[in-house]
Amino acid sequence: MSRPVVTLLTDFGLEDAYVAQLKAVILSQVPDVELVDITHSIPPFGLLSAGWLLHTSYAFFPRGSIHLCVVDPGVGTSRPILAVLKDGHAFVGPDNGVFSFLFPAEQVIEITWKPLGPLSSTFHGRDIMAPVVVELLKYTPPQSLGRPASNPVRLDVAKDMVVHIDRFGNVVTNVHGSRLQDGCSLVVGGKRVHRIVESFAGIPPGEPALIVGSALTVEVAANRESAAVLLGAKAGMPVRLIPPGSYA
Amino acid sequence: MSRPVVTLLTDFGLEDAYVAQLKAVILSQVPDVELVDITHSIPPFGLLSAGWLLHTSYAFFPRGSIHLCVVDPGVGTSRPILAVLKDGHAFVGPDNGVFSFLFPAEQVIEITWKPLGPLSSTFHGRDIMAPVVVELLKYTPPQSLGRPASNPVRLDVAKDMVVHIDRFGNVVTNVHGSRLQDGCSLVVGGKRVHRIVESFAGIPPGEPALIVGSALTVEVAANRESAAVLLGAKAGMPVRLIPPGSYA
Amino acid sequence: MSRPVVTLLTDFGLEDAYVAQLKAVILSQVPDVELVDITHSIPPFGLLSAGWLLHTSYAFFPRGSIHLCVVDPGVGTSRPILAVLKDGHAFVGPDNGVFSFLFPAEQVIEITWKPLGPLSSTFHGRDIMAPVVVELLKYTPPQSLGRPASNPVRLDVAKDMVVHIDRFGNVVTNVHGSRLQDGCSLVVGGKRVHRIVESFAGIPPGEPALIVGSALTVEVAANRESAAVLLGAKAGMPVRLIPPGSYA
Repeated sequence: MSRPVVTLLTDFGLEDAYVAQLKAVILSQVPDVELVDITHSIPPFGLLSAGWLLHTSYAFFPRGSIHLCVVDPGVGTSRPILAVLKDGHAFVGPDNGVFSFLFPAEQVIEITWKPLGPLSSTFHGRDIMAPVVVELLKYTPPQSLGRPASNPVRLDVAKDMVVHIDRFGNVVTNVHGSRLQDGCSLVVGGKRVHRIVESFAGIPPGEPALIVGSALTVEVAANRESAAVLLGAKAGMPVRLIPPGSYA
Repeated sequence: MSRPVVTLLTDFGLEDAYVAQLKAVILSQVPDVELVDITHSIPPFGLLSAGWLLHTSYAFFPRGSIHLCVVDPGVGTSRPILAVLKDGHAFVGPDNGVFSFLFPAEQVIEITWKPLGPLSSTFHGRDIMAPVVVELLKYTPPQSLGRPASNPVRLDVAKDMVVHIDRFGNVVTNVHGSRLQDGCSLVVGGKRVHRIVESFAGIPPGEPALIVGSALTVEVAANRESAAVLLGAKAGMPVRLIPPGSYA
Repeated sequence: MSRPVVTLLTDFGLEDAYVAQLKAVILSQVPDVELVDITHSIPPFGLLSAGWLLHTSYAFFPRGSIHLCVVDPGVGTSRPILAVLKDGHAFVGPDNGVFSFLFPAEQVIEITWKPLGPLSSTFHGRDIMAPVVVELLKYTPPQSLGRPASNPVRLDVAKDMVVHIDRFGNVVTNVHGSRLQDGCSLVVGGKRVHRIVESFAGIPPGEPALIVGSALTVEVAANRESAAVLLGAKAGMPVRLIPPGSYA
């Protein structure tokens, strides 16, 4: 029988023992689990990037995977913790908008269950959320851990925008690649990008170009330099796709 | 049956293949093991940080876990290698003070056993310590690998001090949180911090504050900036807890 | 029965979800696998470093391991993908020279097989190479996935040179340690290094020294600083070993 997969996505970095403590809590109770790091380098308050990486990655994992997402600037305040169920995957994390790309989902549960014992006020990931993951791994019905969330926080992720800057400086948008037809251009950060390429090798030095990226959305890339720097682009910035022939 | 856990804590960074070679040596002989990185970003000579992260993390792992700690500026010299047994956990690493927070322990063994074959003079982690972990995974009695350590290196970790700076710039001390009562203040780096908060959200911008952190000790935190930078704090720096009403 | 090992070596960094997506593709089809990161911090275009780290690490892993190496600046162009078989290990990656240190190998196969479904043009690691790894894990005969590679790209790795700079600034060469006899010196970046030491502790401050490193080749190291900075050394730079008594 295959081992269940738990992914971890945080802004904890890799310098401290925080990620290891999340894993330790899970392994202590469910030894036969496959732990996979998505990333721990989400920039502080990078809810949009975190949500995008989760949204575009989870479906590659086996159904039944549980995704623990601890990007939680509000730790210690009363923001709820959610369990989200979608497409045979479960997601656990704070109710701060990080799951916006997943909505609508099959179920969104506001967790009211808490493990026994003292809780730190600064590390709910280890002290509450990882134990919730353990409960799910033990097949505790999610709805028994809380109540339906009435109004989970949603970022406005329907508009066309930059959703992530990757380490190569590629400017990732949520504009579906099928919309990128010959003659289109894209306005990002006040600059208009016309060139459309099919591989990075086709981009002239110093010039940003449009390419359909690995999430099948439009990205702006540059040749061995950062398109984000060229354009001054940041996650959350709106973009505008201009149809062929338009001078908009 | 559950797989044994081996954690790894080093200052090797993640840029090279050193960590992977440690894992390879273990996996080659004991395939059914769960390898968990604590961190590989210990700053050079960061024995105090390494020891603190180990000390505050190991108990979250299952009993029977083995913790391989290779922070070893003295590699190639004649410093001994230790196996430390405590609370059902085993620890393997150089005798340079990195295990100070674990003492007193049930057993401290100076390893005299060496694997067959040539040994590099620069990578005892791979060539001696990982094989010691393999021996322990095979249930070789630790005492048969060496002799009781007569006088292992101990840093003075009983005094109140900064034990770690985390990636967020939180200044972590070894002052137990139960000592932090209303009206207390803490002197760090010549500066006195008065404000006590229960969550990061309660800290005014630009001002450091005291909080009981995830290891249940006092930390100095700041609001979206580095308390360590604000205070000029570094691991090893002494701190002083001042009781309510004192002008000390 | 032991789980097969798959190692991953890329220049993707750890900030994004690219590495996780490689792992997800593999885990979705072969759940019972041990995934080990070699490194994901290969510098851009760092084929030499990547090849060296692979070459000096693979033999520590169990025979039967599969090594997925995605350092692929030519993604999206028509460069072939290779499967290389050597010493009971399999290697999958682009045909761009990254496997130079492995040649000659038992078999070098140019992969012509492709998985069903749409392929991104920017992420062949996830969309083609990881599925090739899955095929190998399922014991598909490698030769059935393609044809013998007629002329794989080889970097000239026979000459004496710097093959890697590690995170400590050690300058790693491919000069075998057995050639480093008393009185030898090494010229790197126009500077001649005379001192030969057996451990890092023997190096005077500010002065580079020669040491036989963990891959049993000659390295230039410095005392708590970067030998690479002292010497201006970079991967690919030629080095010259000067015999005792020579003024060459």
